[in-house]
Amino acid sequence: MMSARRFKFWGWGYTDETASDDERQRLREFYSRCFSVSRWNEISPPVAEEISLRSPRIKAPAALAGICSDDTEERLIHCYGKSYPDSVRAFARHFPEPPDLVARPRNEDDVVNVLDFADGVNAAVIPFGGGSSVVGGVETAISGDYRGVISLDLQKLERVLEIDDQSRAARIQAGVLGPQLESQLKPKSLTLRHFPQSFQYSTLGGWIATRSGGHFATRLTHIDDLVESVRVVTPTGICETRRLPGSGAGPSPDRLFIGSEGTLGVITEAWMRLQASPCFRAATSVRFSKWHSATEAVRAISQSGLHPSNCRLIDNQEAMTTGAGEGSTHILVLAFESADHPVDSRLARALEIAGEYGGQWDRDTLGRGDAHRSGESGAWRHAFLRAPFYREVLTAMGVMYDTFETAITWDRFADLHQNIINTTRRIIREVTGREGSVSCRFTHVYPDGPAPYFSFYALPKRGSELEQWREIKHAASDALIAAGGTITHHHAVGRDHRPWYDRQAPGQFRAALRAAKKSLDPKAILNPGVLVDP
Amino acid sequence: MMSARRFKFWGWGYTDETASDDERQRLREFYSRCFSVSRWNEISPPVAEEISLRSPRIKAPAALAGICSDDTEERLIHCYGKSYPDSVRAFARHFPEPPDLVARPRNEDDVVNVLDFADGVNAAVIPFGGGSSVVGGVETAISGDYRGVISLDLQKLERVLEIDDQSRAARIQAGVLGPQLESQLKPKSLTLRHFPQSFQYSTLGGWIATRSGGHFATRLTHIDDLVESVRVVTPTGICETRRLPGSGAGPSPDRLFIGSEGTLGVITEAWMRLQASPCFRAATSVRFSKWHSATEAVRAISQSGLHPSNCRLIDNQEAMTTGAGEGSTHILVLAFESADHPVDSRLARALEIAGEYGGQWDRDTLGRGDAHRSGESGAWRHAFLRAPFYREVLTAMGVMYDTFETAITWDRFADLHQNIINTTRRIIREVTGREGSVSCRFTHVYPDGPAPYFSFYALPKRGSELEQWREIKHAASDALIAAGGTITHHHAVGRDHRPWYDRQAPGQFRAALRAAKKSLDPKAILNPGVLVDP
Repeated sequence: MMSARRFKFWGWGYTDETASDDERQRLREFYSRCFSVSRWNEISPPVAEEISLRSPRIKAPAALAGICSDDTEERLIHCYGKSYPDSVRAFARHFPEPPDLVARPRNEDDVVNVLDFADGVNAAVIPFGGGSSVVGGVETAISGDYRGVISLDLQKLERVLEIDDQSRAARIQAGVLGPQLESQLKPKSLTLRHFPQSFQYSTLGGWIATRSGGHFATRLTHIDDLVESVRVVTPTGICETRRLPGSGAGPSPDRLFIGSEGTLGVITEAWMRLQASPCFRAATSVRFSKWHSATEAVRAISQSGLHPSNCRLIDNQEAMTTGAGEGSTHILVLAFESADHPVDSRLARALEIAGEYGGQWDRDTLGRGDAHRSGESGAWRHAFLRAPFYREVLTAMGVMYDTFETAITWDRFADLHQNIINTTRRIIREVTGREGSVSCRFTHVYPDGPAPYFSFYALPKRGSELEQWREIKHAASDALIAAGGTITHHHAVGRDHRPWYDRQAPGQFRAALRAAKKSLDPKAILNPGVLVDP
Repeated sequence: MMSARRFKFWGWGYTDETASDDERQRLREFYSRCFSVSRWNEISPPVAEEISLRSPRIKAPAALAGICSDDTEERLIHCYGKSYPDSVRAFARHFPEPPDLVARPRNEDDVVNVLDFADGVNAAVIPFGGGSSVVGGVETAISGDYRGVISLDLQKLERVLEIDDQSRAARIQAGVLGPQLESQLKPKSLTLRHFPQSFQYSTLGGWIATRSGGHFATRLTHIDDLVESVRVVTPTGICETRRLPGSGAGPSPDRLFIGSEGTLGVITEAWMRLQASPCFRAATSVRFSKWHSATEAVRAISQSGLHPSNCRLIDNQEAMTTGAGEGSTHILVLAFESADHPVDSRLARALEIAGEYGGQWDRDTLGRGDAHRSGESGAWRHAFLRAPFYREVLTAMGVMYDTFETAITWDRFADLHQNIINTTRRIIREVTGREGSVSCRFTHVYPDGPAPYFSFYALPKRGSELEQWREIKHAASDALIAAGGTITHHHAVGRDHRPWYDRQAPGQFRAALRAAKKSLDPKAILNPGVLVDP
């Protein structure tokens, strides 16, 4: 019933993947220097046999027995997502509220039947894509008066059902993981071209439900713009929007479901807009000695209409942490790509703009199609892809490493940035009793503002990691909201961001969303506690 | 209380604007040839003094007396929009259900007070921007158990309140007309760059409420993408979304109000994304002898990532009607523009693609920045801007001239096109007893499909214009929906498209929207009959 490769229940990726010995050694040495710690007392990762779970409170009916499981490891995998507190709880062998059942529907009828069953027994249903949530979006520890909790794992809905190469679109099942999706499109030389950091371990349905952001800096990077239509199983029936390139007929039905985080229905399929695979590329990295000059250069490039595929600004602190620099300069990773025409002139114009703000670059990297995989860009890219695997090493060592992100208009960015850096540094010092580190990069940029992404590390007290993390998270989130930002640009709301979401979303809109939810999910069985209260 | 210039209550634009004598003569000659009519029996436009309106059923309270009017011409202006049936009814001096009052709030408090008053006396409120609706969106003839109807004209909310030139955004009052808006942005060399055909006679709030489409063919042409945040007065309170360049926090609150057509609240302000005024331009027009080759060329260009600002394909029939061609070739108007860099290479690449599909163009027009205002493009552009003024001439003559529009994915376009042309020609013949004409152009193109726009003319029986129009409209709309299209790409739903909207929007979504409406407008006083039933 399960695929041969299993996801870890305590960390990122499959059980056969982890940080290498070299990487572990480098992490130990780096954080030894940071915190003046000479020896790390490392906790070993949990194994399923150590953990005894609460007995399932509900039992699958005979008709669903074939797709439901109460196997311990299966339930463990579906307890948590992949956030820092998830990792801390996993390493503490703390799994007090597992799902009673894990259902892996093979088709849409199975999804309907699981919802019917849950409705009948008053069980909550937590839709689960790849489980890569870092905001408590798939957590099964919920409040409310439910007789049980079912984690609804969509990964068997993994097929591309139809490709329309005239319109460059495909009808795709929602449970497909990134690599499976791309491999099914490849024979047609088409691509969804949506590569979030979690690409290998997250699903199309998860991307749509959480308004995922791809790794491209500008244009067609948010999943929102790639959705042509969606098909959703709600507790009151199936809803399929019409496949259209554009429409002005009332508020967009798609946009109600995009970002609904499993609270309004279970996305089972979507028609997605595809692109031809790029074959023209130009890339380089630009160094800036002043942060303000660097952000102004990025602002000018983002307003130029050049549409770089990558325009990621990495501050000197983050460059150092990731090995992309030695800490004295800020690095702008700049790339262009096209499936139709050369992009060298666009890179040249972007560099001209960067130069006006004091940016410097190596002329000999220009024109190398693989520039984004070599040099500073390459080092940063490697760290970016490997970073999620480091969490299980760092949590084992006792190091807190976490990230949070936002978006803000340019006029308020400098204040927000300073505020967040200062607040987070201060709260880390106050809570943990020693200095930590906070760094920033831009993951996406818009003509009207950047999406700044903050990474921090700290050394919490052993046994108090969760409380100390919570204090830091609260202070940083309060500061984000006070400075006018969004509580999330692409990580989603989940359960962790809920208090700040409630401050961000206008009251009238929240009332309307509650009413919409009540009409689609009258018994509030879907993902209780996320976005709206049951 | 009213501005010096008044809108016509029987046609397009201000009372001091109309078709010239030359234009009238050309129209008479053209349609004489079309219908073999030698002499037109023309009805004169109505004047306010001819019309006696029903007495107002409600009276403004003293506190609102200064902003409310029951003046006859004021009430006439707010009876109808600018559609063909609106024009027929106006020329028939048929105004049986005028608004009882017209309110022109001077500020947001006034809007709140009008809603409170309406709520108290159980009056319906019809938000009115420029009144350019061609779908019955501002019509005051409504069904339901209301004691009166108030047309809420927002045109006094006409100021740009704040410009943030760092983020290129501005906070703008919703009642501002296009030219007033642009003139307030011009000192900062910024532009909203949103130019629907109705630009001079429609408002920002109207554009947002109806998901207006600008005249650019690709990218940043739909108002949806230009909205950074909105402020809306609902009967249950004021809702302001957060100003953000992007966000992943739940379903987009903005997108619930964008396209809500005055049914969820009254938009009073919005932060809008601006652009620098373009200074680099390249344009030309390309002729195709085969329609299929032309549409394939447009498909290839729309999928190239070149992002033309104009990519309007005009079929031979429409080229002839508008004087842009002699009827043997289809014309593609192609233009590029940028505020940052030359665009000649993009035009060159687009022409290369057009050439692969048999397109032909005059080499000597290349490089002329004003190419879009001269030659075939110029002729078509002139007809496009003047066409709305022709309706009052044609209606007076007894000619039915109307348009409808949709969007469809490329794979289904050819079938939809053939179907619509055949269906509309046939129904015109059946209903009016003689041949009419149906032509097509693309107003917008997306990588996954075009937005085809159909124009038709017919000679209905005098006195039966409304019934005959309704039969034609129904047949064409049925065909659009059956072929998989949207009932509207940018004209909105209003009252005229409601039956087909109900077939297009999924039932679950409509239930959710009804629930949202009930939470924001519990007494259903806002624009009854549009999108959802009271």
